[in-house]
Amino acid sequence: MSNGRSFQVQFQPIGKRVTASPDESLFEAARESGIDLASACGGEGNCGQCRVMVLAGETSPPNLDEEFILSELEIQQGERLACCTYAHSDLTIQVPRESLITGQRLQIASDLREIEPDPLVRAYPVTLTPPTLEDIRPDLTRLMDGLAEAYGVRGLFAGTAVLRTMSPIFREHNWQVTAFVREQEIVGLVAGEKRPLGLAVDLGTTKIAAYLVDLETGNDLASAGAPNPQIGYGEDVISRLNHVSRNPEGGRVLATKVRETLNELLTELIYQADVTAEQVVDACIVGNTAMTHLLLQLPVRQLATAPYVAAIGTSLVVPASELGLTMSPGATVYIPPCIGGFVGADHVAMILACDLDQETKTSLGVDIGTNTEIAIRKPGMSFLTSASCASGPAFEGAHISDGMRAASGAIEKVRITESDVELTTIDDAPAVGLCGSGIVDVAAELYRSGLINNRGRFDKAHGRVGNGRFGSEFCLVPAAQSGSNRDVLITQKDVNEIQLAKGAIHAGLQILLEATNTPASEVEEVVVAGAFGSFLNIKNAIAMGLFPELPNAQYRQVGNAAVIGAKWMLISREARSRAEKIAQNTTYNELTTYPKFGRKFALGMLFPEPVSRNR
Amino acid sequence: MSNGRSFQVQFQPIGKRVTASPDESLFEAARESGIDLASACGGEGNCGQCRVMVLAGETSPPNLDEEFILSELEIQQGERLACCTYAHSDLTIQVPRESLITGQRLQIASDLREIEPDPLVRAYPVTLTPPTLEDIRPDLTRLMDGLAEAYGVRGLFAGTAVLRTMSPIFREHNWQVTAFVREQEIVGLVAGEKRPLGLAVDLGTTKIAAYLVDLETGNDLASAGAPNPQIGYGEDVISRLNHVSRNPEGGRVLATKVRETLNELLTELIYQADVTAEQVVDACIVGNTAMTHLLLQLPVRQLATAPYVAAIGTSLVVPASELGLTMSPGATVYIPPCIGGFVGADHVAMILACDLDQETKTSLGVDIGTNTEIAIRKPGMSFLTSASCASGPAFEGAHISDGMRAASGAIEKVRITESDVELTTIDDAPAVGLCGSGIVDVAAELYRSGLINNRGRFDKAHGRVGNGRFGSEFCLVPAAQSGSNRDVLITQKDVNEIQLAKGAIHAGLQILLEATNTPASEVEEVVVAGAFGSFLNIKNAIAMGLFPELPNAQYRQVGNAAVIGAKWMLISREARSRAEKIAQNTTYNELTTYPKFGRKFALGMLFPEPVSRNR
Repeated sequence: MSNGRSFQVQFQPIGKRVTASPDESLFEAARESGIDLASACGGEGNCGQCRVMVLAGETSPPNLDEEFILSELEIQQGERLACCTYAHSDLTIQVPRESLITGQRLQIASDLREIEPDPLVRAYPVTLTPPTLEDIRPDLTRLMDGLAEAYGVRGLFAGTAVLRTMSPIFREHNWQVTAFVREQEIVGLVAGEKRPLGLAVDLGTTKIAAYLVDLETGNDLASAGAPNPQIGYGEDVISRLNHVSRNPEGGRVLATKVRETLNELLTELIYQADVTAEQVVDACIVGNTAMTHLLLQLPVRQLATAPYVAAIGTSLVVPASELGLTMSPGATVYIPPCIGGFVGADHVAMILACDLDQETKTSLGVDIGTNTEIAIRKPGMSFLTSASCASGPAFEGAHISDGMRAASGAIEKVRITESDVELTTIDDAPAVGLCGSGIVDVAAELYRSGLINNRGRFDKAHGRVGNGRFGSEFCLVPAAQSGSNRDVLITQKDVNEIQLAKGAIHAGLQILLEATNTPASEVEEVVVAGAFGSFLNIKNAIAMGLFPELPNAQYRQVGNAAVIGAKWMLISREARSRAEKIAQNTTYNELTTYPKFGRKFALGMLFPEPVSRNR
Repeated sequence: MSNGRSFQVQFQPIGKRVTASPDESLFEAARESGIDLASACGGEGNCGQCRVMVLAGETSPPNLDEEFILSELEIQQGERLACCTYAHSDLTIQVPRESLITGQRLQIASDLREIEPDPLVRAYPVTLTPPTLEDIRPDLTRLMDGLAEAYGVRGLFAGTAVLRTMSPIFREHNWQVTAFVREQEIVGLVAGEKRPLGLAVDLGTTKIAAYLVDLETGNDLASAGAPNPQIGYGEDVISRLNHVSRNPEGGRVLATKVRETLNELLTELIYQADVTAEQVVDACIVGNTAMTHLLLQLPVRQLATAPYVAAIGTSLVVPASELGLTMSPGATVYIPPCIGGFVGADHVAMILACDLDQETKTSLGVDIGTNTEIAIRKPGMSFLTSASCASGPAFEGAHISDGMRAASGAIEKVRITESDVELTTIDDAPAVGLCGSGIVDVAAELYRSGLINNRGRFDKAHGRVGNGRFGSEFCLVPAAQSGSNRDVLITQKDVNEIQLAKGAIHAGLQILLEATNTPASEVEEVVVAGAFGSFLNIKNAIAMGLFPELPNAQYRQVGNAAVIGAKWMLISREARSRAEKIAQNTTYNELTTYPKFGRKFALGMLFPEPVSRNR
């Protein structure tokens, strides 16, 4: 079918634009751009959950599955199943709210505790008396008087963006409004009685996770995720910083890209939760130091070269309008403080959400991502010590032939038996690739089964090791059983990528223990954060040498702790002040200046002797 | 010469664009758009002060005057006298700083007192130590530490616009900078050691006057003026408000127009004073309530219809960037509070600068403009009473056949003798038209000489009264002696316009006296403010019935008190807090609701019996 041409598909009302090739279903095209359509069958045309409406453009005709599931009238009206529909021209597609799901793997669900909301922005519903010839108080004075009378709040002010909305709202909605007030500032005005909402974002180098939260209850209303669109300008942090340093327009372009994506996510969240943009009055965005600098379009040249100095280390409160975020006109975005040039606000958020700053035992915190941050907390010391290692995006599925993000059809668990491969996929859908936890399992199982040696080399003599385009390989799922009609493979190159990632993390952990004079036996707890970390098989992670053997350590897998920390800082003043203290009290260790770093890295790339594991 | 075509002339570096007809010299074209070129001869080609450089386009060839004044080399290089040069195509003209003058009639010169500067923004020059591998403090932390060490200031913060400039400035200027700090906020950073400057603006319905001021010394560095560009959307306030209420884009368009002009004025001031835009860290803009609402693009529909409610009555501090003003990135604009829908921040500024709030005698304050505001202060009362009358722009030269602004060649004094007309023009240049004070003189003199009667009708039988296109007229300057080669006339229509203006002001004064139970004999002082008011012949103003006879009143002509008040609020915190009190303690009187208003207005249009004047 493919004639090489691609089409632009616009998904409404989210406003996302995707390039789709003619042999790619709308379901697949949507997923690639981070729009998760509901599906129980994984895009097989069986469940009927991925309904969409074709508003404009030409598509493949309805197939038998669709004719079975949809009524004649529905088909006449343009309703289709996204997994059965292919673009034949540029398209505009309407996605009904029911067909949108929050990516399972983004959900805020963890064994981290809940905190008591104490938000910075409060909602004050009020009914005002209209002006008369005898009462010609200006509109703003009337509002202030009304709020003082009803709630005793005084000395308020407002910016012009909010003030511009005021007079028409009063007159069009019978003088009944809700004022959203942050400290002394009116940051938004909406008709009727409405709740104040907030946006929590983990701005990762590779992925962005966003949540819409009710500020007063702390309830999650919706979640959404998307790839970081700056990836096209460099997969890792340093490449992006160099791009900006070398291109006069680079800073503006990269900032605009990520702001647009944040705004798309926000639109999607608002649509999912069936609320209005004007109710979103606060936000907290965490990310590593480079990501927050790029988001804010701060100077980064000095961050990309020794001595790697951040422009800003302290927290910032930035008008949402300055970032182009469609929220309430006076809304602000809180960017927490960072710890160093390579340990950012996301690490502060993780330490916060894991309560590492309040631990009474020797604890390690590990947040695995494109950059992996590690922190150690020892009782009796008033500070934490942290480090960062460039682990690369392998555990996020990038740089791995059949790697993918944790979406429907991703292999998340693997066991290689004598004769077979046992796997579990997300949604139990036909396997299409490997997500992070599956990658760790494969590496551990290949080693356990003797298919690779301790240097990560495939045993070419082994009957189950194939020889493909990239050298030795192992077939996990043959094309006939896969969801992609292609073999799902793990190649020699993939194993090497995994070794590089685990080598960096292993070395970081070892050096941080040595630098703080902490014998491995003293570590009582290891908190593993990150979306990937929460689905990880810890035994396999140790077996493959991702984590060192810590004989007495309890492992806690806490999910995306960074975004939970962001949520805490969004809904609680106390959490913000704790974050400030964490940043002040955490010492940064530059790993690469340690003379042993290179050797530790090389050793970390090896697979450990299995003996120790069995003792 | 004229073939009916006009050309676009762009004046650099100010950036103003003017339409010039081929029979209009560049000197005249510049003047029309508010650019005052230096001239001692009034554009006669004698003084050589209006030198400009033609950068692009075709002009008339140099004439004999230019060949006499300019050297051959200068002419070769494109130097010209603006008064001798005519556009033959679109032009780009460079105006050297020496050729730009501050309009004389805009200068802050009055018998108003000086105040002690106590500005909100302070300058802190500092030299920082560069980062090393041992000292990787973020740039902002380094700056904060440096300021704390040198000046003891702590707890500062900065917005992203300022932070964006920081890292490059440090590195390009050897870590020597001046931080401009307002309260706790760093609002600007500049290389080296620089002084903080501010912008004071009187945003009139017809004219805009702007000053650049040294915030620490209070010295005026430059002044500039321009017509209010919103005039095209209505000469009076109500027409402009209606335009905005009726056109969805109206608010944006009118705001943009005036913001662009303010930015042009700012560029001109910066050029005149030879400073940089980054040094301009604060501004105060005063204007009537409609003008400030339009500037800020606030809702105005409710201001244009009964009960005429302002959206905002309290003062506002708005980021300069939001108004598109090219100042320091964190600079703000202070808009003082207003008193009512038709008594604005300009009136507050006038009361402030005239110290009317602190007077111990019965005083009237009159600020004559397109809207005329009046305030009365009586000893023993804790508040002032104010009113506003729609006097129209006649005294600013508009709606008068040969009216003009107070620029070179404007007739400012007139005496009609038995056989002749004696006049004084600005710069002693050949007469081209009448400015406000000349208009008052003409009206008084025509009446005194019996050329018009007490109803303002010309005596057609009088030998000196001519008959022109608009009925009866009086010739002040015949074409042969004028600077425009046309007769300078005053027509029956002009006299009627003057009567309407004076009728409104007269009625306002009378009603305010009655409403506050103030017999005319008790008034001890009349403060006459406004650019026009300061050149007014008070005797003639009384003779023509502009001011009522106040037997015991001393008249004080104080010039543009509104802009002086704006300057005070720019340089002094105490002045801002006095302004807030003035707005709170001034009662607004709506004149048109007085049953006697119509009658007083009609009576005010009459010319008073001269007997009373001679007693």
